[in-house]
Amino acid sequence: MGQHPRVLAAMKDAIDRYGGGSGGSRNIAGTNPVHHVLEAELADLHGKEQGLLFGSGYSANDGALTVLAGGTENCAVFSDEKNHASIIDGLRHSGAEKHIFRHNDVTHLRELIAAVDPARPKLIVIESVYSMSGDLAPLAEIADIAHEHNAVTFLDEVHAVGMYGPQGAGIAASLGIADRFTVIMGTLAKGFGTSGGYIAGPAPIVDTIRNTSRPFIFTTSLPPATAAGALAAVRHLRASDTERHRLAHNATLLHTLLTQRGIPFLSDQSHIVSVFVADEEKCKRASALLLREHGIYVQPINAPSVRAGEEILRVAPSAAHTTEAVHDFAAALDDVWRAVGLSRTDAMTRWR
Amino acid sequence: MGQHPRVLAAMKDAIDRYGGGSGGSRNIAGTNPVHHVLEAELADLHGKEQGLLFGSGYSANDGALTVLAGGTENCAVFSDEKNHASIIDGLRHSGAEKHIFRHNDVTHLRELIAAVDPARPKLIVIESVYSMSGDLAPLAEIADIAHEHNAVTFLDEVHAVGMYGPQGAGIAASLGIADRFTVIMGTLAKGFGTSGGYIAGPAPIVDTIRNTSRPFIFTTSLPPATAAGALAAVRHLRASDTERHRLAHNATLLHTLLTQRGIPFLSDQSHIVSVFVADEEKCKRASALLLREHGIYVQPINAPSVRAGEEILRVAPSAAHTTEAVHDFAAALDDVWRAVGLSRTDAMTRWR
Ligand SMILES: Cc1ncc(COP(=O)(O)O)c(C=O)c1O
Ligand SMILES: Cc1ncc(COP(=O)(O)O)c(C=O)c1O
Repeated sequence: MGQHPRVLAAMKDAIDRYGGGSGGSRNIAGTNPVHHVLEAELADLHGKEQGLLFGSGYSANDGALTVLAGGTENCAVFSDEKNHASIIDGLRHSGAEKHIFRHNDVTHLRELIAAVDPARPKLIVIESVYSMSGDLAPLAEIADIAHEHNAVTFLDEVHAVGMYGPQGAGIAASLGIADRFTVIMGTLAKGFGTSGGYIAGPAPIVDTIRNTSRPFIFTTSLPPATAAGALAAVRHLRASDTERHRLAHNATLLHTLLTQRGIPFLSDQSHIVSVFVADEEKCKRASALLLREHGIYVQPINAPSVRAGEEILRVAPSAAHTTEAVHDFAAALDDVWRAVGLSRTDAMTRWR
Repeated sequence: MGQHPRVLAAMKDAIDRYGGGSGGSRNIAGTNPVHHVLEAELADLHGKEQGLLFGSGYSANDGALTVLAGGTENCAVFSDEKNHASIIDGLRHSGAEKHIFRHNDVTHLRELIAAVDPARPKLIVIESVYSMSGDLAPLAEIADIAHEHNAVTFLDEVHAVGMYGPQGAGIAASLGIADRFTVIMGTLAKGFGTSGGYIAGPAPIVDTIRNTSRPFIFTTSLPPATAAGALAAVRHLRASDTERHRLAHNATLLHTLLTQRGIPFLSDQSHIVSVFVADEEKCKRASALLLREHGIYVQPINAPSVRAGEEILRVAPSAAHTTEAVHDFAAALDDVWRAVGLSRTDAMTRWR
């Protein structure tokens, strides 16, 4: 969507109409009509009462979780060990007691939550599509656990909004259970192609965050052009399934081609295809060869984004890639795999 | 600058060239040539080795101070009591030991710093133009104290960059002492009319922050259009003094007109003219009357942005205001002052 003519036209139109920046923080002269329209659109997309924009997804997680976990007295937080840095930082800044459960391990989550006083307020924080492994959370089971233990849920759908679910509302929506999550959080910078972050949730929670979150209050609001571009992207992807179909097609094709070649990757559950190299040096060499020999740029992901020894080449086909491009990439990777001397698997391997 | 044709043209051009967003974080596919050019331009503006962009001034203070104070073992931080929320948050997140000195009180700063073991690393954090009171820090004296005690200095020039000093390099530069401050921090969202934040400083410090600051690493980078607009604004304001002269003229005129009418305001040292109302209800009424009767929007500033009982109408003439508009505003405020029954002072009063 970052190249979509409607998005670009909306941005330029907003520049002509409003100028280069918003001119202030949300509470001090920096709220633009587009901010309100976009917040309402995002609330509607997720079937929640209210939406709230932040300068980025990082700030949305940091700002919202600090308030949600820190402002609820005696709150016990349950957080997946693979949660994104912005979630970790928000929870750390909240000062709340934190229980980390093993990645996607609902048995472990059940154990941890059962060990906490039933009378205490509880918050479960997860992602739907995990950013580095591309696998999905067991959302229905987690919603059940939350229900049983009366826990508030905070669901980061950063890698899903625009890309999965009816109208692009995300993975929970694709399962028909978005209403079982208290707060849904997203970014405007990935599927929606622009920049900024948001939460959508019940009015009392969103109001509290609006009124007390420091990264929301004490900063200049999103440029109107950015908000207008995001709004155009959200609206387009609510109306059109074409891009989602193309994305799903390209992702499935890539999974198939890599599996056929015995090239290991972490998960076939999403468009995030983390080709598992598990060696920092070889990962860098593979990336360099892909660029030099094949003109393909793939970022090697090293620590601190992943643990040392779990280095990956993180590939994400987009809706804009052609079928041919996906084939070409798989062939190029096959070549490089051979050149670098990386080992193959018989079947697709999931690593955790 | 947010309405300047050059800025708007640069933004639209970058949209055509690069699209709606940067497409990734700085380390993962989201670095655009414009980011590098802008960082070099800002470093050059401030006479520092390197510049580093953040998503906002809030993130720049939060991200840089967390690393600078938290990454230096046993660091003792000295922070002005009126420092901005983003500075407070960065220092809080750093976990470093913090000593708060009374606003602009160098005697107090001296006392506090003298009481700390001379062998410990020290960091002094101040603003040049204070955001809510509009007064200036005693920069030369603070630089002396830092020198005597071998302290690193971090200077927030958010309300000064583009607006003061040669080429718009800020207050320290206007005094010829920018080189006496280790790190200069600024925003692209005020004088430069767009959005984003930055630091400029010595290479080893900026490198450390680039490599470890989580709000820098774990978020999508600035949209190329925003960076390009900011670059155009910085370059224009380096070459042109016209806007700075207009701003100074309007600010001085407003100071004079309010003084003549006995309307109290906090400081005549900058373009931030905080008209002192000191009553939440009256502050809101004055703001409402200005809008309804005079068509002028002035934001009432209440807690938590200022302390309760210190409510202000915060006015900032810009370079774009005409002399007539400044006169009209002073007359309108005079009217409202009478209608709301606010008291006058004989002479301009500085409140702290
Ligand atoms: C799971 C997850 N949450 C939040 C973020 C932060 O979003 P943003 O880039 O908009 O700051 C990211 C990545 O950047 C992410 O992967
Ligand atoms: C002194 C000061 N520092 C930092 C900031 C944050 O800058 P930004 O709006 O770019 O986040 C502000 C105001 O917003 C400020 O007044």
